Amino acid sequence: MGLLDTISSPQDLRKLSPEAIDTLATEIRQEIITVTSENGGHVGPNLGTVELSIALHRVFDTPKDKLLFDVSHQSYTHKLLTGRNGRKFKSIRKSEGISGFFNRTESEHDAFGAGHAGTALSAALGMAFARDARKGDEHIVAVCGDAAFTCGATMEALNNLATSTKRLIVILNDNKWSIGKNVGAFARYMNDLITTPFYNKLDEDLRGFLKKVPGGEKVLKLSDRSRRETKDFFVQSSLFEKFGLRYIGPIDGHSVETLEQYLHFAKTSNRPLLLHVITQKGKGYDVAINNPEKFHGASPYNITTGESKKSDSQAIPNYQDVFGKTLCKLAETDKSIIGITAAMASGTGLSYLQKALPAQFVDVGIAEEHASLFAAGMAASGMKPVVAVYSSFMQRAYDMAIHDICLQNLKVLFCMDRAGLSPQDGATHHGLFDIAAFRPIPNATIMQPRHEDELADMMFTALTEINGPAFIRYPRGAGIGITVKEQPTALPVGKSEILRQGEGIQIWALGNMNEDALAIADRLAAATHATVGIVNARFVKPLDKERLLEQASGAKLIVTMEDGILQGGFGSAVLEALSESQKPVPVCRIGWKDTFIEHGDTVGKLREKHGLSQESMLQTIKNAWDATV
Amino acid sequence: MGLLDTISSPQDLRKLSPEAIDTLATEIRQEIITVTSENGGHVGPNLGTVELSIALHRVFDTPKDKLLFDVSHQSYTHKLLTGRNGRKFKSIRKSEGISGFFNRTESEHDAFGAGHAGTALSAALGMAFARDARKGDEHIVAVCGDAAFTCGATMEALNNLATSTKRLIVILNDNKWSIGKNVGAFARYMNDLITTPFYNKLDEDLRGFLKKVPGGEKVLKLSDRSRRETKDFFVQSSLFEKFGLRYIGPIDGHSVETLEQYLHFAKTSNRPLLLHVITQKGKGYDVAINNPEKFHGASPYNITTGESKKSDSQAIPNYQDVFGKTLCKLAETDKSIIGITAAMASGTGLSYLQKALPAQFVDVGIAEEHASLFAAGMAASGMKPVVAVYSSFMQRAYDMAIHDICLQNLKVLFCMDRAGLSPQDGATHHGLFDIAAFRPIPNATIMQPRHEDELADMMFTALTEINGPAFIRYPRGAGIGITVKEQPTALPVGKSEILRQGEGIQIWALGNMNEDALAIADRLAAATHATVGIVNARFVKPLDKERLLEQASGAKLIVTMEDGILQGGFGSAVLEALSESQKPVPVCRIGWKDTFIEHGDTVGKLREKHGLSQESMLQTIKNAWDATV
Repeated sequence: MGLLDTISSPQDLRKLSPEAIDTLATEIRQEIITVTSENGGHVGPNLGTVELSIALHRVFDTPKDKLLFDVSHQSYTHKLLTGRNGRKFKSIRKSEGISGFFNRTESEHDAFGAGHAGTALSAALGMAFARDARKGDEHIVAVCGDAAFTCGATMEALNNLATSTKRLIVILNDNKWSIGKNVGAFARYMNDLITTPFYNKLDEDLRGFLKKVPGGEKVLKLSDRSRRETKDFFVQSSLFEKFGLRYIGPIDGHSVETLEQYLHFAKTSNRPLLLHVITQKGKGYDVAINNPEKFHGASPYNITTGESKKSDSQAIPNYQDVFGKTLCKLAETDKSIIGITAAMASGTGLSYLQKALPAQFVDVGIAEEHASLFAAGMAASGMKPVVAVYSSFMQRAYDMAIHDICLQNLKVLFCMDRAGLSPQDGATHHGLFDIAAFRPIPNATIMQPRHEDELADMMFTALTEINGPAFIRYPRGAGIGITVKEQPTALPVGKSEILRQGEGIQIWALGNMNEDALAIADRLAAATHATVGIVNARFVKPLDKERLLEQASGAKLIVTMEDGILQGGFGSAVLEALSESQKPVPVCRIGWKDTFIEHGDTVGKLREKHGLSQESMLQTIKNAWDATV
Repeated sequence: MGLLDTISSPQDLRKLSPEAIDTLATEIRQEIITVTSENGGHVGPNLGTVELSIALHRVFDTPKDKLLFDVSHQSYTHKLLTGRNGRKFKSIRKSEGISGFFNRTESEHDAFGAGHAGTALSAALGMAFARDARKGDEHIVAVCGDAAFTCGATMEALNNLATSTKRLIVILNDNKWSIGKNVGAFARYMNDLITTPFYNKLDEDLRGFLKKVPGGEKVLKLSDRSRRETKDFFVQSSLFEKFGLRYIGPIDGHSVETLEQYLHFAKTSNRPLLLHVITQKGKGYDVAINNPEKFHGASPYNITTGESKKSDSQAIPNYQDVFGKTLCKLAETDKSIIGITAAMASGTGLSYLQKALPAQFVDVGIAEEHASLFAAGMAASGMKPVVAVYSSFMQRAYDMAIHDICLQNLKVLFCMDRAGLSPQDGATHHGLFDIAAFRPIPNATIMQPRHEDELADMMFTALTEINGPAFIRYPRGAGIGITVKEQPTALPVGKSEILRQGEGIQIWALGNMNEDALAIADRLAAATHATVGIVNARFVKPLDKERLLEQASGAKLIVTMEDGILQGGFGSAVLEALSESQKPVPVCRIGWKDTFIEHGDTVGKLREKHGLSQESMLQTIKNAWDATV
């Protein structure tokens, strides 16, 4: 039994000797590596924040004190120290297991849930305001990665910080990475802070504090040495000072002792303070250090080699690979095509373009609003921007989609990846709202391909045939294994495709749901004694109303199947079209119900739980059929 | 005939003598005042940018050069100088007239449309990227107000600026105001730039340039004098320099000659440059200077006194007043209620709270993402935040509504003002998407009051009965003139109200549409020989399915009426509920069709044009009735 097993709450942590702390840190790293090698997860970010999390929990008293992690994918050590070690931690990101992110329903130590970047500082300010209004004395600590500072939301919070509270502790966990290497002026500025001599004035409050507390002199000596070496240990009038934040750093993020001293000092500060903590992504595990992008969020891997444990299905190309390669092909002959990502080059497959045609690739950092507006500006100047973005992150640019792009009918192509489930990540990452959110917007064309070859065709269609905004959504991971044509072909806009002839029951399936429809069609026909037709809808908008209404005259039941939320979704588009034409044929809509979907092992398991396994869908349709006859 | 009448394009401007320029500026101011006193409009911002716009058009060559105005409500002079003077300008904000904002379809001189703040810098960067990729030589000029820099989108663009282009001209039009007085660290920093001695080093490139050009010596002398006086004419290593922007300023924004010299210099700069231009909101019109908030965006007014030309309907209290007063009432006894606005205190009516209970009021500046996250943090700490926001601006916080507030089921109340049309402002300001956008989100409660007293009841209900996120939408302007009860009462959540008994036709009306339903019910009954029932739906979500399904059994036609976009809207919620229960009753959905709605004189005129006058709605329902029988 290791030391980690004896930690059932942060209290236990505070009794440990410095030596024991070292042992504990080693055990935590080991546990993170062991478990993520099985479950996948955010390996690098968590290995980088072991000491920081230990120090935070030795100095602060959660849940009374509020600890927020930006994005919160770096919270594994926090979870291990707050009653979620052992069996619980081994279940992380699994069905019925704990979440890979902060989750308010999972633990009172998780002050604010998050899976998207840039929210912690704002939410922490809200908590600080609430505390001040109530004259409470708890500490509010927001741990933000350097990448959070490329997000507009963080910058908006920064602007409001000094006027909102006098007491807030911001930890800038600087590892120079978001998911890929950080970009932009802020990243450069942070680098300057560490490497360029700026200011030398020591914070006198801090010096006084360190002189008085046990162990403080040692930290002071270390800091003085570091100051002599880097000439900029304390930066007054830094960028942060302009925003009313007291800046202290840089601080070694892998020394619990040093961190504790600074955190104790931070508790005494009567104005908002930022501790600039330097950590190393992947610390203690060379495999992760050497492959920072892959080990940001990794699938299960071999601990010794770092190689992914591939499942059979991974032999089939991912949508992401097809997207990336297709874009390269199209962009090579059309120099007006520019690929834009908000720090997701690798995840979206845009990294292919980055390598092949770097002049036609832009990574703007975690900044979806800017990514979209930047694309809008390009389109207004005659370029053909392609924004590769996860469906759930595209929620950040909703106003830009309406106010800037669709209203002006600008030719921007959004390739919305992770539409449907991101099973292990869970509710924050599922892409279930995009159909309902973007369908109401005039001028938008919305499509979902049935398979990877159709994705290429849809990209080609959007870039050559559609003179306005287009949104293509597709799921994470493998397609169906179909060969992608050498040259994509244009699809007729707003036209569906018949996959199976039938009449009594007409299934209108969107994207990946076509395979499910094909899989259950025979059994459905047998069970209902009806002929079952299947239509690959292709377009959510414009919907192929012509075919729909034609079919509605003969069909006894129309079924819609979509990998999205039901309210306002594709099925509702079908309902609307039928209603407008006064076609009273019953409709059975299949999709995700009105609830947030948790994380789980696989898409299959989550579908099963929420009534979307093939068996369940078959049963749902049979029930609907029975009700019509 | 004045000088202004002779200006048919910017070319004409370049021939004018300095004296003629002065005359022109005076005429433009006169014209802006005359026309806005009739049509309403953004008086203050436009009076402040007369000289700046003249100078820009004398130095730059639109449409080849690209000129972007952030928000673009300050573009009246630009419009007057680019072929839209005379009759066209007199039609501004009127039906069939020109828009009060940039509009790409209106003129090739309007490079990028905008009605929301914070988009210009990002879009300009996209244009600069496009130009660089094509090796073009046009200039890209983004004119941003100081308030734009509280927006996350602007800050995201700032972070990406230096890496995206070497040539971009940013004009910071600093008048110290957004709509209200600017807030936050950025505003303070800008003030420091003007008033505190920082740096004195003159930009040598600029000095050299000024020495060489005609008139430059004069500007240099002026600037040296100003430098002696303020000690900070040129600020090196400013906040902007950290973002890779060359900073020059502050510059007198009311001297065309001075502005021109700097703009000519800016054209030569081989790195991105920011000109800090100081202007006065309302310049030249004391009435506007003395009432900056009212004259930011004014309704028609008396030129001499500044008093609003009130129409009769303005005797009826606005929803905004009722909202503000009700919140004061509730917040007085419940100190956990905090009102939050993103620079819209006056417009939303939150200014009542600001005055009465300033400790329970927060203005975060134009920063809807932060406003929502800040509220989320408060709610997580047990406060009851109320975010007062225009419906169309709430689009900015869509991800926060999903990812932070509804997913965590936090008790945040959004009061979404300007739901429905903002007629004179037009497409960027209409609040038509909120129902469709927020209805798909689990945990959300969405309501719209029939009248101002019900608004108070709904606010009370949300704050006392609903333990999660709630969204109340209501239109701009006057209610129906009903007395607001002294003490609001809680409504049963998810329950509708019968306004008129009937059976053959059941009208489910949402919010303000109830009055229309009541107005046409008798004629509808007479025309169809059916009994007409009217249900005040109250809740979009949860929908009162119990009553709906009960009625569906007897009704021959169900009609839905909503002041929102039809796709995915309230009517679709009704369709979904009926479809799920296999109730095949025909539904006639009335609302806004799948197109962006332009600006116009009044709600009435726009409704008439788009088939939503009472006459048209009556006809629509009659047609639907005829099709059912």
